[in-house]
Order: sequence, then structure tokens, then C-alpha cells
Amino acid sequence: MTSLSVNSGRLLADIHELGAIGRETDGRLTRLALSDADRLGRDHLVARIRAAGLEVAIDQIGNIFGIWTQDRHADQKPVLLGSHIDTVINAGIYDGCYGVIAGLEVIRTLREAGFTPPRPIAVAAFTNEEGVRFSPDMMGSLVYAGGLDIKKALATRGTDGTVLADELVRIGYAGPYAPGFLAPHAYVELHIEQGPVLEHIGSSIGAVADLQGISWQRITIEGQANHAGTTPMALRRDAGHAAARIMTFIHDRASRPDTSGVATVGTIAFEPNAINVIPARATLTIDLRNPDENRLVEEEDALSRFLSHLQATGDVKIHVEKLARSAPVRFDPRIVALIEDVASRRGLASRRMTSGAGHDAQMIAGMAPAAMIFVPSRLGISHNPEEFTSDEALVAGANVLLDVVRHLAHET
Amino acid sequence: MTSLSVNSGRLLADIHELGAIGRETDGRLTRLALSDADRLGRDHLVARIRAAGLEVAIDQIGNIFGIWTQDRHADQKPVLLGSHIDTVINAGIYDGCYGVIAGLEVIRTLREAGFTPPRPIAVAAFTNEEGVRFSPDMMGSLVYAGGLDIKKALATRGTDGTVLADELVRIGYAGPYAPGFLAPHAYVELHIEQGPVLEHIGSSIGAVADLQGISWQRITIEGQANHAGTTPMALRRDAGHAAARIMTFIHDRASRPDTSGVATVGTIAFEPNAINVIPARATLTIDLRNPDENRLVEEEDALSRFLSHLQATGDVKIHVEKLARSAPVRFDPRIVALIEDVASRRGLASRRMTSGAGHDAQMIAGMAPAAMIFVPSRLGISHNPEEFTSDEALVAGANVLLDVVRHLAHET
Repeated sequence: MTSLSVNSGRLLADIHELGAIGRETDGRLTRLALSDADRLGRDHLVARIRAAGLEVAIDQIGNIFGIWTQDRHADQKPVLLGSHIDTVINAGIYDGCYGVIAGLEVIRTLREAGFTPPRPIAVAAFTNEEGVRFSPDMMGSLVYAGGLDIKKALATRGTDGTVLADELVRIGYAGPYAPGFLAPHAYVELHIEQGPVLEHIGSSIGAVADLQGISWQRITIEGQANHAGTTPMALRRDAGHAAARIMTFIHDRASRPDTSGVATVGTIAFEPNAINVIPARATLTIDLRNPDENRLVEEEDALSRFLSHLQATGDVKIHVEKLARSAPVRFDPRIVALIEDVASRRGLASRRMTSGAGHDAQMIAGMAPAAMIFVPSRLGISHNPEEFTSDEALVAGANVLLDVVRHLAHET
Repeated sequence: MTSLSVNSGRLLADIHELGAIGRETDGRLTRLALSDADRLGRDHLVARIRAAGLEVAIDQIGNIFGIWTQDRHADQKPVLLGSHIDTVINAGIYDGCYGVIAGLEVIRTLREAGFTPPRPIAVAAFTNEEGVRFSPDMMGSLVYAGGLDIKKALATRGTDGTVLADELVRIGYAGPYAPGFLAPHAYVELHIEQGPVLEHIGSSIGAVADLQGISWQRITIEGQANHAGTTPMALRRDAGHAAARIMTFIHDRASRPDTSGVATVGTIAFEPNAINVIPARATLTIDLRNPDENRLVEEEDALSRFLSHLQATGDVKIHVEKLARSAPVRFDPRIVALIEDVASRRGLASRRMTSGAGHDAQMIAGMAPAAMIFVPSRLGISHNPEEFTSDEALVAGANVLLDVVRHLAHET
């Protein structure tokens, strides 16, 4: 395969141009799904897609597609690239946008190089990946892959009381195509890592082999409020102490050398929350993740047994509420190996890894072979203006995507 | 010593009468120090003291004294009984009030029985024991014993912005006597336990030998906010997990069989407190108590070493703020033994014990031999409308006080 590289200046300029759209008066970047700011971002992207000579298609959930088709292969399934361009509140400029713009840049580069692909190549920007304004997150790709009924999705009410279908019409992105209309031959998503691993090990490229399953629970512990001075340790029913035991239990399990999962307690509250009163109630959330479904179930079961044990010995009552649960996703091993191979040919150190966050790729993996390419995030920071990936790493990731696409488009 | 008992009907009626004063429209009992409700309670008490034929004296911090003096022993130091009648918000009727009313009842009983004490006997209601509206708590007894300058105390600003001296004048309790004007021969405070020990072991009387020292600290842990999915356990700086380690550390130390201290984490907060974000900051309070000053220092030191260890190994920064510190108080062993002795003579099971809460007695112990008598609190509940001690136990406690006073008043 001849040496070819993306136009790095154009790629970086496009990332910064999109990142300048939808800024609030205080300079903060916020393009919530289907907001006015999102419309500006979408309009900008669509103009860029058209300028590249691609066909634009919008589906009923507002997913945007830029499709490069030639007559002679119009009956072939396309290689699909993509990600999302909606953001969280006070976002960085890379999350999602990088994958969409790099996908477009890869197609532009191939067209300009006179590449004649045996398959169509397309880039997608999926609606509402962040899930800040409308729930669930990854909604556009979920609907596209058939995991959520389009009617149900359109009826979703946002945090601001609006209905998703109305907002789609309002911003001009209620398209005619049925979700799933373009069935991919393969899907590849290029994304910033949003974690510290690549930076920590000094690798440029993550070949994402799988994506963690997530188990979210809220645990409420009922003890008894008593005087912190007059109640002997043996006569306490200390809900706060039980919470601490749960925290150290899940932390210690997730920290064992033989596990690949993570465990986090991100929220906690005590009642009455007074310095000299033993907590009568403690509420905490548990975030368990594991790339292996059996291991995730094991961790859930171990926690459940520990809670029963605490209840039996600690004289507290424990109530568990399941908040969210998703199974792990295994990406296509052939594409993962391809990513490693092309990275190596470009002299880039790569690391086979697990995605700790959710991505559109996990949804599209339900309808086509899929994988992801990660580039390093400085300090692992994301969803924050401090989000940063070096220009060199952004260009390297786009070139790996370019090479992967060239291979996939040649497959029969 | 001849058999003599208090008038149980009058004792109980007085407790309930005082408990009916200062109720809010919703029925909740709240007599914050120097409030209108406190004035009503004070006026009621003063009327009762006068009705008993005692001299009323008010000092400059508003402490109320009912003094039974006879000419022939006017130069002798009095035996002082007492406690306080201010309450917390939404209080029970026993805390403090029981000791004041029982003290008055003991004097009434002795007068009626024709007792001719070699020493004066007096009952005191100390100002602002609870410390809810004005800080510090136990203020009246602290000033009385010389531990806080009267001018400084009078200048105290309340949570509602009022100045203590103004409130004393407003409710008519800015008295002429210098705090400490009545130097006690001995001080005995009868009080509900406010803890579960006596009920748990089935004893009627607590002979309180000492009072725990208290160490309050606020600990702030600085870690780093990171994505709960993408950050491997080994790369985390989890402030929440460090907080949990501190909680289990102090709990485990206080639960060792060879310790008599207690340790409590009553308040906690995480930031940003989001389910999928590793806590960047955790703030918690530590309440350590021990009846032995050396042991309390040991516990403080052990915690301090543990925090240094956490800081060194957990990649977090820890800031410690000392909020309050009081040394343990050892009550007069002779009076404690006397309490046990008279209880035994009345056929009452007694237990030598430590006070886990603070009381006026700890302040007066700085100027005179002092001790406390406890009666059981149902379920250990206090500072709450559920606070309850049976009539039988209230009467038993008052009779023990009666016998103790008869002995002390005979001492030369």
C-alpha cells in the first residue's frame, strides 16, 4: 500500500473551527444535543461534508451521514467512520468531534489521492451521545442499531421540558431516513482516550479491544442516630461506618492484581450529618465496571454478599437500588489487530486496551463489526476545558484511521 | 441515717410542668438560652424556688441559685446541686431540667423533714449549657468556675446576631453577683445518662467517675477528579477512598477490647459528588473521646501518623483543622464512692461509669470536688422528643441525690 497521510493542517483547523462554535458569552463551550448551539455545529459540519463533495443524509433521529459513493459499488455496504459532535456543559473541543472530523478528513484525503474504493465510505455524527439534555446517552447510535425504538426516542422529554422530536424539527434535523438505513460493512471510531493510560505508558495509539460493562447501584444504609460521646462502640448502629466498609471492600477487590475492573464511590451523604451524632443513614453510589460480563456479575455478587454480611453483623438495614446496567462489548478482533498492524507500520507504539467510558461504537457493534482507536488524553482529563491531545497525536490517530479504512474498504 | 425519701409526686409534676413551658405552636419544646421561652422557664423555676422558701440569687452571667442558708452555718461553704434548664431545638423534657428540679426537691424534702444541715445547701441552674444559640456550650458553669472571662462571655454574639449581655438584660436575668460568689464545698449533678449503657446492663444508677476528653477535627483530603470508567485503580488519587480508610481506621482502634474511648465520623462530603467521577475532595469530621488524657493524645497521634501514611502512599493531600479540644475530667473519687454506697443501701444496682457527654459538672469540678449521678435513658436517646426515663428511675435518682447531699452537708 502506498504511503498516504491526511492533510494535518486541515484536520487541526477543522477541529478548532468546530470547537469555536457554540461558545457561551463567558467563553465556555456547551453544545447540548439539539440546542441552538448544536444546530450551529451541525450546520457547520454539513457544510464541510458538502464542500468535500459527499452526499448528506439525515435520519429520523437526526444522525448526520456524509457518504462517498461511486456508481460501481453502490450495492456494497459502506465502511462507516464517526462519533458525535454534541458536548457536555463546559466541554473540551476533542471529545466526539475529533472522530467525526478525522473521519471526514480521511475521506477527503482518499478522494484527493484518487483512491477508488471497492466500497462506499461514510462518516456519521450520531445524535445525543452525551445524554446531558436527553436520556439515555448514546441515543442516536442506539436507535440506529435498533436498540431503542425511534418513536420512544422521539418522545423523550429533556431536562428542560422539551420533547426531542420537537427539538429535531425546530433545528431542522428531523431527517427522512429510517435509522439503520445504511448498514455498515464495518464501523471504526477514533476518539480521545479520556483516561490516563496511553499517556502513562507512553503509547500513541490505543487499539480498543473491548468496552467495559457498567453496573450502577445506589445503596442506602439505615442505622440509628445516637450521641457520639455516650454510645459505646459495641452498642452503635453506625450507618456511616458501614458505608466506609463498603467503600474499602469494593476498592480492595478492584485493586487486586488479577482484575481488570474498576470500582468507584462517587457520591455519599450522611444523615443527620452532625459532628457529634452517629449517622442514622448513609447513602452512597457504586460504579462497577468490567470488560468481562462474568467478572462483572462476580463483582456484583460479591458486593451483594458483603452487604448481607454487613446487615447480619453490623445491625444496619441496607437497601439496594439498581440504577443502570450495561453489558461489556467485545470489539471485532480482526479490526483491533488491523489497528495494531497499521500503527506498527507507521512506527507508532500501540496498546491493546479496554474503553472505560461508553461510546457510540458500543451500539454500532450490535449491527456490524466495530472497533475504536484511542489517542492519549493529557492527564486523562475530559469533559472539561482542560481536555487536551497534542496536534502530533491527533494527526497520528487520523493517519491510523486512514490506513484502517483503506484496508477495510478493500475487503469483499 | 434515718430513712427519708423525696416527694415523688411533686418531683414528677415539677418536671412535667417545666417541660410544658416554651413549647412552639407545633408542640415542639425549644427553650434556647436567653430566649423568651427560656425566660418563661426561668421565671417558673424562680417562683418554685421562692415558694420553697429559698433565697434566690442571680449572677452576672444569669446563673440562677436557690440557697437554703441558716444563720448558724452562714460562713460554711454550701453543698451545691444543679444542672441547666435551657434546651436544644425540639428537645425532650429531662435533659438538665431533671437535675435542677431534683436538686430543689431534695432541699424541699430536707427542710420539711426538719433536717438541720451543718452547711448551706443550694441548687443552681446554669446559663446556656447547650450552646445552641451562643457558643461555647456549658458557658454559665465555665464562667462561674473562672474558665471564661465574664466580659468576654457577655460580648458573645449569638447565631441570630444578638449580643448575650443584651439578651440577659432583656429577659431580666442580668444579676448582680460576681460569678463564683458562692464557692461550693462540693457539687453534685443528677442527670439522665443520654446513652444506652445503664439500660443495657440493667442498672438504675450511674456513679459517674469521670468525663471524657473530646477532640474534634475536620479533615480535608485533596485528590484528583477523574473518570470512574477510564482511570485504572493504580492511577487514581481517590479522596473518597482515603476518607473511607480514615473512617475504618479510627473505628477499628476505638473498637479494640482494651480501649475505653469512642470515635465517630458524623459528617462527610465529596466533591464533585457525581456517580461516575472519582472524588477530588472529601471532607469529614472526627470526634474522638477518651476518659484518659494520655490515651486521647495517643489516639490523636495515631490518627495523625495514619494521615501521614495515607498522604505518603495514597497520593492525596490532607489538611487537618482542630475544631475543639477538652481534657478529660476526673470527678471526686470520694463522692463517687459515696454515690455507690448510698445506692447500694437503697438496694439500687449502680455502675461506675464515664460520662460521654459534656456537663456543667466538668466546669464546676475545676473549683470544687464534684461528681455526677446518672439515671437510665431509654434507648440512649436524648436531644429529641423521644427522650425518656421512667418515673421510677427519676425518683430513685433523686433519692440517691438526697442521701448523698445529707452526707456531704454533714462533712466538716
